[in-house]
This record gives sequence, C-alpha cells and structure tokens, in this order.
Amino acid sequence: MKKLVYLDYNATTPVLPELATAVAQIVTTWGNPSSIHWAGQAAKNLVRTARANLAAALGISPLEIVFTSGGSEANNTVIKGQFFPNQKSTRNEYITTTVEHPSILKSFQWIESQGAKVHYVGVDREGNLDLKKLKSLLSEKTALVSVMFANNETGILFPVREIAEMAHSVGAVMHTDAVQAFGKVPLNLAELNVDFASLASHKFYGLKGTGILFSKKGSEVLPLIHGGGQERHRRGGTEGTLGIFALGFIAAKASEIKTQSERIEKMRNQFEAEVLAKIPDLSITQRNAKRLPNTSSLVIPGVDGETLLMSLDVKGYAVSTGAACSSGNPEPSPALLSMGLSREEAQSSLRVSLGWPTTEFEMTEFTETLVAVVERLKKLQVAPTFAQEES
Amino acid sequence: MKKLVYLDYNATTPVLPELATAVAQIVTTWGNPSSIHWAGQAAKNLVRTARANLAAALGISPLEIVFTSGGSEANNTVIKGQFFPNQKSTRNEYITTTVEHPSILKSFQWIESQGAKVHYVGVDREGNLDLKKLKSLLSEKTALVSVMFANNETGILFPVREIAEMAHSVGAVMHTDAVQAFGKVPLNLAELNVDFASLASHKFYGLKGTGILFSKKGSEVLPLIHGGGQERHRRGGTEGTLGIFALGFIAAKASEIKTQSERIEKMRNQFEAEVLAKIPDLSITQRNAKRLPNTSSLVIPGVDGETLLMSLDVKGYAVSTGAACSSGNPEPSPALLSMGLSREEAQSSLRVSLGWPTTEFEMTEFTETLVAVVERLKKLQVAPTFAQEES
Repeated sequence: MKKLVYLDYNATTPVLPELATAVAQIVTTWGNPSSIHWAGQAAKNLVRTARANLAAALGISPLEIVFTSGGSEANNTVIKGQFFPNQKSTRNEYITTTVEHPSILKSFQWIESQGAKVHYVGVDREGNLDLKKLKSLLSEKTALVSVMFANNETGILFPVREIAEMAHSVGAVMHTDAVQAFGKVPLNLAELNVDFASLASHKFYGLKGTGILFSKKGSEVLPLIHGGGQERHRRGGTEGTLGIFALGFIAAKASEIKTQSERIEKMRNQFEAEVLAKIPDLSITQRNAKRLPNTSSLVIPGVDGETLLMSLDVKGYAVSTGAACSSGNPEPSPALLSMGLSREEAQSSLRVSLGWPTTEFEMTEFTETLVAVVERLKKLQVAPTFAQEES
Repeated sequence: MKKLVYLDYNATTPVLPELATAVAQIVTTWGNPSSIHWAGQAAKNLVRTARANLAAALGISPLEIVFTSGGSEANNTVIKGQFFPNQKSTRNEYITTTVEHPSILKSFQWIESQGAKVHYVGVDREGNLDLKKLKSLLSEKTALVSVMFANNETGILFPVREIAEMAHSVGAVMHTDAVQAFGKVPLNLAELNVDFASLASHKFYGLKGTGILFSKKGSEVLPLIHGGGQERHRRGGTEGTLGIFALGFIAAKASEIKTQSERIEKMRNQFEAEVLAKIPDLSITQRNAKRLPNTSSLVIPGVDGETLLMSLDVKGYAVSTGAACSSGNPEPSPALLSMGLSREEAQSSLRVSLGWPTTEFEMTEFTETLVAVVERLKKLQVAPTFAQEES
C-alpha cells in the first residue's frame, strides 16, 4: 500500500483519533436539547459541557458562544447581521481586506448589492496590511471592520487587536475571521478585544459542519437562521449535538497548541531552508512577515502548481495550490494575485501546511520528493497532463 | 435501572443503530471534498454517494439537492432567498399558514420588517386549511407560497400538490416544509410538484445538524450562506461530511417507511381508542383529518400538560406538551391556539408521537401509566409541582 502523507492542514484536518473513538460512543446521546424530558436533558448537558470547555479554552464566557454550522455561517451572520439593523442609519460603511476568505468577500459583495459601502484594504507582497489606508477609511459612518486573524494561503497574521482599537475609537464593531488560526496559535478572544470572531471545528481536528460565532457580551446578533429559541435566540435550528460535542472535546487540547506549534515551526523552517537551497529560483511568499507556524506558500517559477500538486498526489502527498475553494478551479488564487504576485507566479504556487500528526520523517521524505519532482517537471519543459502522469 | 420509553419522535429520533456503527467507521474519512488530492477525493465520493442515495429515495435528481445544516436553514434559505431578488419587483407578496414551524414564521416576520407583504392562512380545529382564502390571496403579486407538508403538533397533512398547482397558476413558486413528514410517510418530491422542499435528517434516525433543501431544476437559489463554490454555489461552507453520509445512509431505509407507518398507525389508533374510552373528557385534536400515522395530540381537560409531562418523565416516558421549541417555555403552543383551542385546552395538551422502535408492549404500558397518572393528577385537583412529584 502506498504511504499517504497529508500536508494540507489548512484545508482541513484529520479527526483526532481519541475523538473518533468518543464520537462512536456519544452518537447514542441523540435527544433534542430543547426537550424537557430525560432524552432532552442528556443532550442539553452534552451541549452545556462543550460550551463550558470551549469558553475556558478561548478565555471567554459560555454565553458568548453561538454554535453554528461552521466558519462560513458565522462570517455571514456577522456581516449580514450588522448590515440590516444599520441599513437605514448613517452607519452604512464597512472595511475589510482584499485577502479574506470567500465567505467574507462574497457576503460583503452581497451587502454592497443591497446598498452598503464596502472598503477593501490591500496587503503587499511582504505581508503588510495598509494600516494607514484602513485608518483613513474609518469614520462615524463605519459600522463594521472585519479583518482575518490569519490568512489561509500564506499564513500571515494581522494585528487584529490594534485594528479593533482603531475600529472602536469611531464606534464601529470589530470582527475577526479566526478560522485559520484556531488550533495553530494560542487564541484568547477576550484579549483580542474583538466583538465577534468566527471559528471552525474542522480546522482543529474536530468534525466538519460545526463552528462558533463568538459574540461578545452586549453585542447584538441578528440571526442569519431565524427559528426556535436555540442559542438564546441568536441561531435557530436543532443543535448539531454530535458536532458540538466534538468541538468541546478538542477544546480540551488547546493547552497543547503552544508546544505543537513550536515543534511544527521548526520543521516548517527546516523545510523552507532546504527547498530554498535546493530548488533554483524558489521563493516563499511573505516569509519574513509574522505568520502561522505551519504554513509555507512557495512560488516555483517554471512549474505549474496544479501539475505539481497532481504529481505529488500520485506519490501519496496531499498539498494545495493555495487556489480557490472549489475543486478543479483553474483560476490562480485571488488572494495571492491581490498581494501582488503575477498571474504566472500565482499559478506556480504551492501551499504546504503542517499539522500535529506531521513528523520529521515525513518532512524529510516530502522535501526529497518535492525537489525530485520539480526537477523532472522542469526538464519536461511543457507541463505534463494528469493523464500522462498517471500512466 | 428504570426502563426508558421514548414517545417524542416528532421532536427528534434516535440514531439508527446500524448508522451509529457506520458513523464510527466513516468518521475517519475526514478529507475536505473541495481538495483535489486523495484525501479530498474520498470525502467527495462520500458526499456524492449520499446525494445519489437521497435523490433515488426522494424521486429527484442528485443536483436538485442542496445540503444544509438542517430544516431551519433550508426554510430560511427559501424565504429570504425569494424575498431579496423580488424585493424591488411587483412580486412582493407571500402566503403561508398560521401553523408553520417557527423557522418559517419568524423568517416571514423578518421579511415583513423589510417590506414584504405576508398573508397568513388559518387552519380550523378540525384541520381544514382555508383554501378559499388562500386562493383569493393569490395574484400576480405573489412571489412564494410556503405550506408545510405535515404539522408537527397534530400531524395534520396539507394538500401541498393542490396548493402548488394554485401557486403555479399565478406564476408564484411553491415551497413545502416537509421536515415533519420525512420518514413518517412515503415522500416523492417530484410528484409533489413543488419548487422547494426542506427536510431534516434528525427526524428520520439520522444525525442532528444536517438537512437538505430540495431545489427543483431551474429554480433560482440565493445563498443564505455565501462562500466557496460548494453545492454548485447554492450554499457556502465546507460540507458536513459525516452528517451528509448519515443522511445518505438513512435514505436507503426509505423503502421501509410504508410498512413501518402502517404498523405504527395501528398502534396509534389503538392507543387513541383506549384513552378516549378510559380518560373522561379527553379529546384528540384533528383526529378525523388526514394526518401523520404516528402523531396523537391529546387534550385532557383539568390536567396541566407540563405537569403531566413531568410526571410521565419521572416514570421514564418521554412525551411532549406540543409546546414551543424552547425548553421550559411556559407558553401554550401558538399552533394549537391558532387552530382554535382555548388557552386552557392548549395548556392541557399532550403530544404522543410514535416511531420505528415503538413496540406494542411499550404502548400498552404507556396507556396504563397515562390513565393512572391522569387519574391521580385530577384527584390532586391542584397541579403538583415538579419537586413534589419527584419525592
């Protein structure tokens, strides 16, 4: 059997083995938390425990957590939920960055179609967010500022706490999409001083289909999903109890984040040093910026990223082109383009992202394989098709 | 150990035992379906299989299925998704019933606050929907008609196919919230001739947190959750693969619905005949209407429904007051009130709903217990508190 090595932890993460075992047991706790009888009580206790564990892990209060179906729902909830109550007021301007996740960018584009004014602040090739521009855009017309905690493609970290202070100084509320940071760097939401934050379980060894919207005490949330009184009337719909349990389960692992991220950063840096030395013309986007410890966004001129990805896939290595969320999308990553990479550079990009299960042995093997595959592809001059690759 | 008997299958259902076993295995298929490498392919295949199974079970095409986080999200998607594109057109009227689920009623109330005109059609005590009124409200101004397939409290079935025809005759689109019908009666969505339908997995022995929006080929869906290109751009967010797998798994059980529902209907009718004979003044709401085979909505004058529920809970029986979705809500069911029950009658209501695991033995024991508990509560005259009950 071919050995499989996963190095795409920014796309999603494997379910924690202990969690997989626990899921098999907890799946029999199937009551509806809204029922007041024994079956409901068991489910309600499960949700309550998960909420308490998460709150402790994130430095917040349990009631500041709204369970959602994931990061995209949380992001949509904040943006649309700020827009409608403000729609007819003088606060109808929004500020975000050009490198946000599609659920942020498309929500903003949609509220623009409904009459909002949205400002997009850029990030340069080195990873600097244009804070001067951001500051100049802030006014008493600003309803919401939404800036991601960490970028999914290059791993760059933004000064969210500083931006939150700027936003608050004009009376705007502050949101951060922290989906990509959750589990990769220690995260204390209270210290961040944001009003809203989005997290997704599947980026931190949990189950897909569950996330949270952190909604600071006193913040108003217009439900995106109207319905029953669940989540204190902030999100309708019967709670996805199994996914919520999983989120509470992984919260208990938050104390290991620091140690793991230090271990991972060492491997990532070693990998980068080696490929820089061994692959001619290779560069690493935003290498000198503050970034996630697990992410490496390579540009390998003369090699098509998708061809490289598929050549590695055939050998059992899972990486990403850092491209769009939709599979088979041949367009280069809009985020990389907006950071100033040329179309050719973006198309020659490869994202390598490490995780808790990653070993030094895997990285050594991967480095050797990557160097060899790049050499071969360069010799072929014309990028081979996937069909040729498989034969 | 106290024997536990669950008779609240309209609130939620236990996870199918075979599914619980399968979940324990499939939880290790954790890839992101949007990734193009091996990990993504496995997850994508899992989603594709589930979609095909469901489509076959519901008589529709796989691409007419949009996976959601549940029935509430599906309901919100249809209502808000019809409202915004029509907002500035002359089609800005909506028709629904007074007895819909809160996710329908609250979504409509919200679009009313945004300028829509919404008409609510009533249902009488016998279960007749005022079709004449509904017809008179239809016009070329009607954007959407949304009528549930089956009511969650009394089980009453509405003539959705007939109403769809009426809606289409004026160019309106038709939606049915079929959450409560899924798994209880055979359901062929193509034959229903609706444009949209909502279903939830947890009402049919699946997992909580997953549902589908049926969106007929050619129907336009404005995403409620904007994001990546998932679900053909109709619903953003990484797919909740485990929940989707579960939905596909239970779809294979759809062929058993007819046999099970006949078995269940016999037990339900026997139960009703016995309590009618043994409990003085008891009545069954909408007993003579076409209704779900598993649901019984009792009115027991002189007995407080919540006290009765708690007395039964102490003995291991889980039933419902047919009240609101939020636990501990002391308000009588708005749906029952709107059907013409007095406040006292609604507060003396008890909903008993049977499911596939229900046995004749359970029903015999439950009937005896219910008769005895009602007799005792009536003798106490004043409804005892929960604390007294427990001692």
